[in-house]
Amino acid sequence: MKAAVLHQYNETLTGDSFVNYEDVPDPKIENPTDVIVRIGGAGVCRTDLHVVEGIWRSKVDIKLPYIMGHENAGWVEAIGSAVTGVKVGDAVICHPLVTSGHCLACRRGADMQAEESSFPGINANGGYAEYLRTGQRSLIKLPKTLAPKDVAPYTDAGLTAYRAAKKASRHLLPGEYAVVIGAGGLGHIGIQVLAALCAAEIIVVDRGDMALQLAKECGAHHLVKADGTEVDQVLALTGGKGAQAVIDFVGEGDAIAKGLAMTSTAGSYYIVGYGGKIDIPALDLITTEKNIVGCLVGTYPELVELMALADRGLVHLATREYKLKDANQALLDLHHGKVKGRAVLIP
Amino acid sequence: MKAAVLHQYNETLTGDSFVNYEDVPDPKIENPTDVIVRIGGAGVCRTDLHVVEGIWRSKVDIKLPYIMGHENAGWVEAIGSAVTGVKVGDAVICHPLVTSGHCLACRRGADMQAEESSFPGINANGGYAEYLRTGQRSLIKLPKTLAPKDVAPYTDAGLTAYRAAKKASRHLLPGEYAVVIGAGGLGHIGIQVLAALCAAEIIVVDRGDMALQLAKECGAHHLVKADGTEVDQVLALTGGKGAQAVIDFVGEGDAIAKGLAMTSTAGSYYIVGYGGKIDIPALDLITTEKNIVGCLVGTYPELVELMALADRGLVHLATREYKLKDANQALLDLHHGKVKGRAVLIP
Amino acid sequence: MKAAVLHQYNETLTGDSFVNYEDVPDPKIENPTDVIVRIGGAGVCRTDLHVVEGIWRSKVDIKLPYIMGHENAGWVEAIGSAVTGVKVGDAVICHPLVTSGHCLACRRGADMQAEESSFPGINANGGYAEYLRTGQRSLIKLPKTLAPKDVAPYTDAGLTAYRAAKKASRHLLPGEYAVVIGAGGLGHIGIQVLAALCAAEIIVVDRGDMALQLAKECGAHHLVKADGTEVDQVLALTGGKGAQAVIDFVGEGDAIAKGLAMTSTAGSYYIVGYGGKIDIPALDLITTEKNIVGCLVGTYPELVELMALADRGLVHLATREYKLKDANQALLDLHHGKVKGRAVLIP
Amino acid sequence: MKAAVLHQYNETLTGDSFVNYEDVPDPKIENPTDVIVRIGGAGVCRTDLHVVEGIWRSKVDIKLPYIMGHENAGWVEAIGSAVTGVKVGDAVICHPLVTSGHCLACRRGADMQAEESSFPGINANGGYAEYLRTGQRSLIKLPKTLAPKDVAPYTDAGLTAYRAAKKASRHLLPGEYAVVIGAGGLGHIGIQVLAALCAAEIIVVDRGDMALQLAKECGAHHLVKADGTEVDQVLALTGGKGAQAVIDFVGEGDAIAKGLAMTSTAGSYYIVGYGGKIDIPALDLITTEKNIVGCLVGTYPELVELMALADRGLVHLATREYKLKDANQALLDLHHGKVKGRAVLIP
Repeated sequence: MKAAVLHQYNETLTGDSFVNYEDVPDPKIENPTDVIVRIGGAGVCRTDLHVVEGIWRSKVDIKLPYIMGHENAGWVEAIGSAVTGVKVGDAVICHPLVTSGHCLACRRGADMQAEESSFPGINANGGYAEYLRTGQRSLIKLPKTLAPKDVAPYTDAGLTAYRAAKKASRHLLPGEYAVVIGAGGLGHIGIQVLAALCAAEIIVVDRGDMALQLAKECGAHHLVKADGTEVDQVLALTGGKGAQAVIDFVGEGDAIAKGLAMTSTAGSYYIVGYGGKIDIPALDLITTEKNIVGCLVGTYPELVELMALADRGLVHLATREYKLKDANQALLDLHHGKVKGRAVLIP
Repeated sequence: MKAAVLHQYNETLTGDSFVNYEDVPDPKIENPTDVIVRIGGAGVCRTDLHVVEGIWRSKVDIKLPYIMGHENAGWVEAIGSAVTGVKVGDAVICHPLVTSGHCLACRRGADMQAEESSFPGINANGGYAEYLRTGQRSLIKLPKTLAPKDVAPYTDAGLTAYRAAKKASRHLLPGEYAVVIGAGGLGHIGIQVLAALCAAEIIVVDRGDMALQLAKECGAHHLVKADGTEVDQVLALTGGKGAQAVIDFVGEGDAIAKGLAMTSTAGSYYIVGYGGKIDIPALDLITTEKNIVGCLVGTYPELVELMALADRGLVHLATREYKLKDANQALLDLHHGKVKGRAVLIP
Repeated sequence: MKAAVLHQYNETLTGDSFVNYEDVPDPKIENPTDVIVRIGGAGVCRTDLHVVEGIWRSKVDIKLPYIMGHENAGWVEAIGSAVTGVKVGDAVICHPLVTSGHCLACRRGADMQAEESSFPGINANGGYAEYLRTGQRSLIKLPKTLAPKDVAPYTDAGLTAYRAAKKASRHLLPGEYAVVIGAGGLGHIGIQVLAALCAAEIIVVDRGDMALQLAKECGAHHLVKADGTEVDQVLALTGGKGAQAVIDFVGEGDAIAKGLAMTSTAGSYYIVGYGGKIDIPALDLITTEKNIVGCLVGTYPELVELMALADRGLVHLATREYKLKDANQALLDLHHGKVKGRAVLIP
Repeated sequence: MKAAVLHQYNETLTGDSFVNYEDVPDPKIENPTDVIVRIGGAGVCRTDLHVVEGIWRSKVDIKLPYIMGHENAGWVEAIGSAVTGVKVGDAVICHPLVTSGHCLACRRGADMQAEESSFPGINANGGYAEYLRTGQRSLIKLPKTLAPKDVAPYTDAGLTAYRAAKKASRHLLPGEYAVVIGAGGLGHIGIQVLAALCAAEIIVVDRGDMALQLAKECGAHHLVKADGTEVDQVLALTGGKGAQAVIDFVGEGDAIAKGLAMTSTAGSYYIVGYGGKIDIPALDLITTEKNIVGCLVGTYPELVELMALADRGLVHLATREYKLKDANQALLDLHHGKVKGRAVLIP
């Protein structure tokens, strides 16, 4: 099959070719619960740029060359001998993690904390390709209203944004505020999820006009241009108190320090983006009783919940399609902030 | 009246005299809801050392000279015209914060987040004295089983430990682990509260043998000497996973970094002690979905709950009594790690 | 002043005169925290009909004649000596319960469970009058967007519906269903609150076409005519599973049995309306692990939250105005199901 | 193999023979995930008496003759082709429900609400026998400290009591009260679980002196003889307020009405036992904001948690052993209140 393959790390993201479009062997059924999915669309994620930079080398064990792509949807092509629940031809979206379901974390519904798992596109071959090997427990059948190429980015960008926004929505009350930092591929979904799950007023902070425009379309109540005065602007909007929830989809540069400064007393700062550091005196965290909450993707049931929102039109994904052979262009456009919403590769 | 008064900051805690024992004017009823309490005992807290060091100057507005002492209990000496519920002569313990109860935070029960408040001993004259001015809403009548001098440190050391341990107990399940870092004035109460409120196995980390001995008496299931290998020891005790809750009563030196390293995937690190910094890459927090939770004292209802535990003998406070005129000796002993449990000044 | 006064119970609600419009003495400031409110509007509630019927005699201690009316808003006319926070002339809405704030329940924010309280209109003179005596802690200042006569019914009808819907919204996930039984004065607000606070699909059950039409305008996703087949209709809409939350604003006749039958496994049935009985074999409740949740009005902070929703236009109250002297007409119209939304008496 | 088989219902439990000890065919592996367990012990449950009475006929679909016994532990005798995680010879305890793990409820950790499942002993052949067919997902390996015959009743009696007590412990605060009605096979475990998981004072109500003595050994703080005055006694112990949690392990006769009457304002009544009816006016439930909570067994992770408590000695099961051939004697003794703790059949 054809695939866009990563052959070497590129720590500074220089040049204009990160992956190579080439022929590779088709994936095969290896275990009774394996499923081969014919890719309908594969989302292009900032994490893919971080993978190219080599940031993930310390966290995962994968040898180059390999195939990136952890946001996948398509059609069932082949199933293992023990697979039930899906059949060849079904349109499916792929939860990014492949688990056996036997450990205590999975039994408690926290499959993201499974003791053993694989994460295609991160520590196994992913979906920048015509076919993907995944597992039965990762698949959700799509309703007819949703096409694979239109929903693929929900599996990571969408699901991560959903889980963070859902966590925040559990404590946000009417009269309170939520700040979303970064209205890109994740953020624009996070805004819509917040609007669907709670009645907090939503403030969106971004330095790009295109992103702020997208935020407004997604339901943001207040737009804040990140021009260096964003903390003051948020404090002014919130009566000097800050927001009870701040969801940081950037996690680099000064976003973290500013995000913490925008968080109200007894509020929670949700860190989703990464690349930067959390660096705060204990005294500051204690006197304000703030919480810092790490967020990583979401569970299988949470992806089902997100699909329910999408099916009802409560969340809409802004996508821009690229052909799989143009994967480098998609990565470059993302790197240069030229993608409104989410890039998707179509084989 | 007599009081131990702070006249100047001492950033390095050098010398052996931090406060001056002297005559000062008696406090007076100023508002209809004011209450004057005759001090039965005033706890000596590491925060008092931090006040002497000047750490709190950036957080609170108080001019020297003033009287420290935020852990107070005694007997009602005089009441304002609008006070109901307590009468002269009642034995009482003083919640450390004085609030009016009118703001939304107070109406929600979160009086620690009151929009307007005073904190005697921190931003107003405190209880290193014969008498203290406080407010009606701060007082809890003591059952006959509890004498003021024996319970004074519950108001801050005890209450802070209680709130942090209670937060942790809400998610700790049988089969899970809680680490307590530091078995001093707060920690030894935190251990007892955890043992009372949940069934997690309790691991206590301290570098002092006296503290570890106290921890054992308080119900710790595992003792870990902080000799540089404490992270490895905790991982070994927890099957390599770390603890689902880590409560850090130290918050200085390498305690924070090690505390975070001891925290399991999806676990929570409760920061109570201070002086140090939280400094961790966003990526580390995200991939593990850890939470960092700031903890500050506790609410009035939580002090009522703690008194219920004390009344039933489920929590016992280790105290060492000093005369008020020996306040400097108490501060020095605390500074040099010579106090087992909590020092209390008796006027 | 003028007031509409209840002189005798009328167990069968026969005739067309329940209260008498007459002159009564003005209320006076009796305690330092008392406030006299000039009534701008007083809501007419089904509970008032139940009061007339004598249903509440066993629950509260009040002698006739007295003045009903527990949904009040207006302007501050006079304040006691200890009142701060409101001043004469302020537009205010009145939380229905008057409390001192000193008991443990109030300190925890659960003011509805105050150990001592009065409930004007239920166990003290209420707002079917020109003036009302209430307490400082009951008042919320209105934003300029909201007029007293337009918001008075929020204090009980609105607040009760808000609290029940908020409880349900805490566990309702996308893809799940909420049933609202009864789209009258409370129900039509409950629908809007659900739509604002969660993303469950909302099914409304009522036997009246006017009520179902109102439900649709309020955001109901599915309308079910209560024609005897309502349980089957709800099961059909929910894939045979029933709804994860059922909020019963009727609580009489067969609503309770049907409401419980519409509740899914592990779901919750919220009982708000009353008059009927809960009558179910323990076995039925156990095998399905259902919960039955009693709901009574709401707290002061919850009324603040509801005002935030109203101020932002997320909740709109359908009202029909009557002159105070036409109180009997309002009660009759309510009794005969002729009020769309909520009747309000204007002095 | 030998088994104690139910051939006919006996609605009045008359006579002294309910089951027949006889030869039946051995169970066989039928699915790849099946496991055959050699029974080490099978608990005898009041539900078994209810099965004999025919109470469950309306709820489950099972034809006589069949083998009761839903509390099973033993050793793995044979495994299906897809089974991993356990091997022949392992000592195991059997979660009572057999599920595939694929439905959304299971994916959320709520396996008790699985869309498809079997419940050996209730709707399939159970463990009053030498061998039992169950599924891989139902098995927990036992630590060496725990022998199958000593822990078998944990799987239903223990797990049901654990789940109910755990639910209550989530909201019980120090200073509050929990009532346990019935200190039999379930209740005596519920008491221990409450004592391990929270600091509420535990009041046990039973009419039998033997049961009250067992309750005391299990950690009850107050014993109340059910002599008709039990509501008054509980109110007296709780300052007139009632208990914040009441767990009713009886659920028959006047236990339900009395249990609800013992429940405090805003408290929760947990219904576990059955046979009786819940019959309460809506008005009573509303004015007090009480909750009624149905409780059914518990999840697989909860059984793991209970095993952790047992392994650490925090919960101890009082058992009385009978030979499998004496199953009728065990059932009779249970019926006549002669079993202290739990009867267990040993093949």
